[in-house]
Amino acid sequence: MPKIVDHEKQKEKIAEAVWNVIHREGLEQCTVRKIAKEAGLSAGSLRHYFPNQSELLIYSMKLVTNRVKVRIENMRFTGTPAECIKQLLLQLLPADEERRLEMEAWFSFTAKSLSDPALRPLRKEMNEEIYSACKLAVETLSRSGAMPEMDAGEEIERLYALVDGLALHALLEPERITADKIDSVLTRQLNTLK
Amino acid sequence: MPKIVDHEKQKEKIAEAVWNVIHREGLEQCTVRKIAKEAGLSAGSLRHYFPNQSELLIYSMKLVTNRVKVRIENMRFTGTPAECIKQLLLQLLPADEERRLEMEAWFSFTAKSLSDPALRPLRKEMNEEIYSACKLAVETLSRSGAMPEMDAGEEIERLYALVDGLALHALLEPERITADKIDSVLTRQLNTLK
Repeated sequence: MPKIVDHEKQKEKIAEAVWNVIHREGLEQCTVRKIAKEAGLSAGSLRHYFPNQSELLIYSMKLVTNRVKVRIENMRFTGTPAECIKQLLLQLLPADEERRLEMEAWFSFTAKSLSDPALRPLRKEMNEEIYSACKLAVETLSRSGAMPEMDAGEEIERLYALVDGLALHALLEPERITADKIDSVLTRQLNTLK
Repeated sequence: MPKIVDHEKQKEKIAEAVWNVIHREGLEQCTVRKIAKEAGLSAGSLRHYFPNQSELLIYSMKLVTNRVKVRIENMRFTGTPAECIKQLLLQLLPADEERRLEMEAWFSFTAKSLSDPALRPLRKEMNEEIYSACKLAVETLSRSGAMPEMDAGEEIERLYALVDGLALHALLEPERITADKIDSVLTRQLNTLK
């Protein structure tokens, strides 16, 4: 009987190998040969799934955005609106090792997108996802609280910048920006919205 | 009479060529051959200044940090403490084309530093520069204003994340994050400190 291969699982395994190679050696080292070795496959099998490096990179980044979306869809909120909003935004920050690896890959991809227009639509999709979460946060808190003379657009921009800046700092300085620090800085920022 | 060459000027010209190549083609394309062509030099002359690619990259990034420092040292402040603080922090944001090019190069370098430990000391130096500016901002505003029950360390972290997140968004979405938007978002953040 031929071995049954779950093709989606194989592709995810390859995408995770991309994240690992980015983590260890950087995005510029993501050759087909290295990724195949990391995933425990032959270069030929890898090419069966991804005919070229560009498709492989795009797929591995789509998997980052999908994982974030699935994580948010599967959340079960408890608590006040402010607490729920905080739980939602924490999904966008590298609070554990798994998310850290994804976000590190994502960050390298974002840098590459500055000079590679082909990567921009996918990057834009993720940015819009984060922006929407910040928009929801500001709108929810403004309905539940006071926020009398605030400009909602500006408040969204401000929260969006803080979330991405905090994610970046948590990647760069994990000893200083711990999960507790992320939580308290985010809480304080949300309090300035009320 | 032999031509007099200002060696520092030549090195700066080469470093600027690095920024241009990063902008157009990405950091992974910064080969000695390409940089030499961009700077209008032979590969041999370039190697005279920088024996290898790594030294060239480090120098070109040091120039980014130096330009930021010199820009801040040459500032002449006018206005209230809050206005002066805002002028200072705006130096750390890509408010014009020149700063944009520097910061784009810096951002690619930061991404590369995640997998290349040799680049980290220089990256850390720049991060500390930005952190110090945010610390000065929080301390100045807390002296001039009220800030009764605030945790200064947390406030610095929050401003630092906002400044870097805003810089990143201004690089990625220049049409949306205009100089005016940068100014108003920063003003609002500083107001939450008072």
